[in-house]
Amino acid sequence: MELWFTEEHTDNVRFTMKVDKHIFSEQSPFQRIDFLDTYEFGRVFALDGIIMLTQRDEFIYHDMIVHVPMAANPNIKKVLVIGGGDGGSVRELTRYSTVESIEMVEIDRRVVECCRDFLPQTSSKLDDPRVKLFYEDGIKFISTKHKEYDLIIVDSTDPIGPGEGLFTEAFYKNCFEALKDDGILVNQHESPYYENTASLMKRTHKRIKQFFPIAKVYQIHIPTYASGHWLFGFASKKYDPVKDLDDKAWNSLGLETKYYNTELHKASFALPNYVIKMLEEA
Amino acid sequence: MELWFTEEHTDNVRFTMKVDKHIFSEQSPFQRIDFLDTYEFGRVFALDGIIMLTQRDEFIYHDMIVHVPMAANPNIKKVLVIGGGDGGSVRELTRYSTVESIEMVEIDRRVVECCRDFLPQTSSKLDDPRVKLFYEDGIKFISTKHKEYDLIIVDSTDPIGPGEGLFTEAFYKNCFEALKDDGILVNQHESPYYENTASLMKRTHKRIKQFFPIAKVYQIHIPTYASGHWLFGFASKKYDPVKDLDDKAWNSLGLETKYYNTELHKASFALPNYVIKMLEEA
Amino acid sequence: MELWFTEEHTDNVRFTMKVDKHIFSEQSPFQRIDFLDTYEFGRVFALDGIIMLTQRDEFIYHDMIVHVPMAANPNIKKVLVIGGGDGGSVRELTRYSTVESIEMVEIDRRVVECCRDFLPQTSSKLDDPRVKLFYEDGIKFISTKHKEYDLIIVDSTDPIGPGEGLFTEAFYKNCFEALKDDGILVNQHESPYYENTASLMKRTHKRIKQFFPIAKVYQIHIPTYASGHWLFGFASKKYDPVKDLDDKAWNSLGLETKYYNTELHKASFALPNYVIKMLEEA
Amino acid sequence: MELWFTEEHTDNVRFTMKVDKHIFSEQSPFQRIDFLDTYEFGRVFALDGIIMLTQRDEFIYHDMIVHVPMAANPNIKKVLVIGGGDGGSVRELTRYSTVESIEMVEIDRRVVECCRDFLPQTSSKLDDPRVKLFYEDGIKFISTKHKEYDLIIVDSTDPIGPGEGLFTEAFYKNCFEALKDDGILVNQHESPYYENTASLMKRTHKRIKQFFPIAKVYQIHIPTYASGHWLFGFASKKYDPVKDLDDKAWNSLGLETKYYNTELHKASFALPNYVIKMLEEA
Repeated sequence: MELWFTEEHTDNVRFTMKVDKHIFSEQSPFQRIDFLDTYEFGRVFALDGIIMLTQRDEFIYHDMIVHVPMAANPNIKKVLVIGGGDGGSVRELTRYSTVESIEMVEIDRRVVECCRDFLPQTSSKLDDPRVKLFYEDGIKFISTKHKEYDLIIVDSTDPIGPGEGLFTEAFYKNCFEALKDDGILVNQHESPYYENTASLMKRTHKRIKQFFPIAKVYQIHIPTYASGHWLFGFASKKYDPVKDLDDKAWNSLGLETKYYNTELHKASFALPNYVIKMLEEA
Repeated sequence: MELWFTEEHTDNVRFTMKVDKHIFSEQSPFQRIDFLDTYEFGRVFALDGIIMLTQRDEFIYHDMIVHVPMAANPNIKKVLVIGGGDGGSVRELTRYSTVESIEMVEIDRRVVECCRDFLPQTSSKLDDPRVKLFYEDGIKFISTKHKEYDLIIVDSTDPIGPGEGLFTEAFYKNCFEALKDDGILVNQHESPYYENTASLMKRTHKRIKQFFPIAKVYQIHIPTYASGHWLFGFASKKYDPVKDLDDKAWNSLGLETKYYNTELHKASFALPNYVIKMLEEA
Repeated sequence: MELWFTEEHTDNVRFTMKVDKHIFSEQSPFQRIDFLDTYEFGRVFALDGIIMLTQRDEFIYHDMIVHVPMAANPNIKKVLVIGGGDGGSVRELTRYSTVESIEMVEIDRRVVECCRDFLPQTSSKLDDPRVKLFYEDGIKFISTKHKEYDLIIVDSTDPIGPGEGLFTEAFYKNCFEALKDDGILVNQHESPYYENTASLMKRTHKRIKQFFPIAKVYQIHIPTYASGHWLFGFASKKYDPVKDLDDKAWNSLGLETKYYNTELHKASFALPNYVIKMLEEA
Repeated sequence: MELWFTEEHTDNVRFTMKVDKHIFSEQSPFQRIDFLDTYEFGRVFALDGIIMLTQRDEFIYHDMIVHVPMAANPNIKKVLVIGGGDGGSVRELTRYSTVESIEMVEIDRRVVECCRDFLPQTSSKLDDPRVKLFYEDGIKFISTKHKEYDLIIVDSTDPIGPGEGLFTEAFYKNCFEALKDDGILVNQHESPYYENTASLMKRTHKRIKQFFPIAKVYQIHIPTYASGHWLFGFASKKYDPVKDLDDKAWNSLGLETKYYNTELHKASFALPNYVIKMLEEA
């Protein structure tokens, strides 16, 4: 049977994959949640029609959103994940025995419940005793915190729908307040390639660098995201993600990863000229 | 009007772009040649239905296939381009006043003629006095050469159709013979992501490293190629592309580039673990 | 979410509909069975990727495959349906109080079971006491029958896969044998428009007219079948479908129908010249 | 190369055909004009992205819009075609030696010019000496005419864009005025199947039957129009299209037609119950 799922990358570009089974769909109070089994990418999880992750390549996203900050500061103990309802970021964080507390604030309880049902690959560590789940608005949650976290990971959707508030100045200011004096903020930073996401990327960088003395951007290959060229932001009060990287310390942990390594860690902060220019102009 | 061009990345994945005008099509003795004007990517040039380049992002491919070897050895004077009928690699090479001779061997004369007509953006420097065009089979052409070139760029299609012979052991051996004692071979090295190209990538690496003491692979983001995650090979008799890079020398040339820079040059040789593993197993 | 089901009408023509939910899929011993909920056509039932019926317009097919023969001979009492596992033909037949026995021979038990679960609209009358279900090969079933039926309805898939034997000379000969002296055979007769089905249509007509003194073809509009222009065959030992139609008798039954009426009954046997020519040349 | 043209039949249904060459596109002052060569349907002519005709099956449309009224009254001498810039209706009309004058009023001169260039199959008879072309607004043109024509054919696009005024009450009233006492009006009457066109179809019938004592609708199979089930309107001051049909007279003309015949003529006025109901409720 010819059943195809299409994500419209722009009005003029479509990315289409053949579907074996449509597993589940639900309109939650916040967004449409879909799970599909595809021939090429295995199980696919989408929100409002946009691919959040695929079974095939979610390791790329989760490796790079978690191990980069964790290697930049081996003393991270208290972590806050905003969004990330699929559990993939939490799963990677639980691999560090040094992490003592992981709070995850996901606005949409149904995302977590559905990922527990349909994505054990990412949600499997949500019951780790160090993990505490809050089904709340991350923007409100963080507004009352003061120097509490070593690391905040903003593992959000695009700034359309429920994710919108996670891209505002006020939110980044509150993240800064909520971080300890050597705290790190990592966030989903959109793609520089297509115009629609490039403008979001620039705006986001402009907002973050107002508050953080160190505000860098690093790049990854995610073939199932629009253009395959994706960025994360690394903002920090103290640690430089490249200069302060202690390769040996991280490598001595013996964590097996399919994408991340400490050479790639440093390399991912080297950006193409056109992206550098966009960030400078932001 | 809803007119869409689709490239099938695999049997189960399609990449589709909206077409404004279908400019030209021809079945040459070697392949089908198509030019389309698309809304997102401007003019698109395809061979046998596979995108070779788009007006929008060809700078990525040509920056990285040319400037990486040119920066690794600033004394390159004599260059051979095999394939590359669109002229983009030649265009970048002509920017170096130190380059004395560029021979381009393209099997399909119609590709060159059509790109002259429909892609002035890439073909504009084919008439540079240092450029000599040969409409011949690159495999035969190279088989008689001995220690002639400082650099060989294999700017080929996938190893299906006319490009097939450019991926054989015999061909790489002949490239080795044709290069001077400090010569460099750079080649289109496929993508590690989808299975069909990943197996070609491994086979190619295996073949090249038999002959060259230094055989590395570097990665780039090309959103209009399957998966967006593409590789080039850097094989060399003497120069290491990272250790021997003289940043200052290249930067003193004052060449403006939209993608390439010397930080990215070094970074592009840092690969994800799963790609490293594939190359080791090759 | 952009989820689309595509039926390939030919290698060069695709018919695509937006899917709300993919309800069910199964590979039975005979064929792939799929149920989808679509925005335009409601529930869609497909076998081997080909649409069998849609909730929206199945009334057209079932009206025309049942009421045409039933109006041509008001004395039909014993009916055999070959195929028709969705139950739509049986549903229409049960509306005639004069019908005493309906035998349905469906080779694929899973089709019937699934349609009971997912298509109550068509399967609702399969438990009528006059209906007897046989999960057998229709070709074998009929080979032992002699002058038993007033009407045989061949409600089959295309002659690819399990339906293939229902388009052979031997089968039509056995249908002739199994019919009473005034018996009628009605069958799914493919479309005259696209070449692939047109050749089947001609071959089918050629085979049927060898055995039956009256062998006609009538046309209907089924927008969800390839080309929308579909044919049924009406073969008979005695009754002419137009000359022998007793309008008044049928209209006095007071059956409400959304497509069929006795004017359209007669009209549907008037065919375009190009179809007439194809049938004459068959 | 995978190049596909898609017509969106509704927001949820797409009809897609593989394109060999994109021949021509132009934005005229009235509409976008496109010509494509497709593998299945040969040359395709579209206005504002909607298929007007295909080389493969235009004979169906033109047979049925012309020969039905011409057979209903063999004494037609003076004809007005409104729209019809491709020339197909004129081509069929010129086959009648009894026709003395054919005026064609097409608002978009570029449609005629382009069809002369790219569709000789339909435009070939536009230079017949009996034909007079007016590049004017058909609505204005007809408003000054009084009892001049035996037949008016409204061969228009859908009532969106330049065709809109050809579906108004005022226009039909003017057609009535412009026709002689036994005049006939035939018009493109949309499809009853999809909701968007069905409502237009009902509104159109309601408007026409206010003015004409005889207002009927007849149906045809046009596989390349949305749903394949299309209608024409036959409105008349005197002649009934079925009762007054003189089969023998028309058949004695010896015109060869691929779709039309006098049996089909009569049959095409027999409509499915759901269409009859829509027309009654209009």
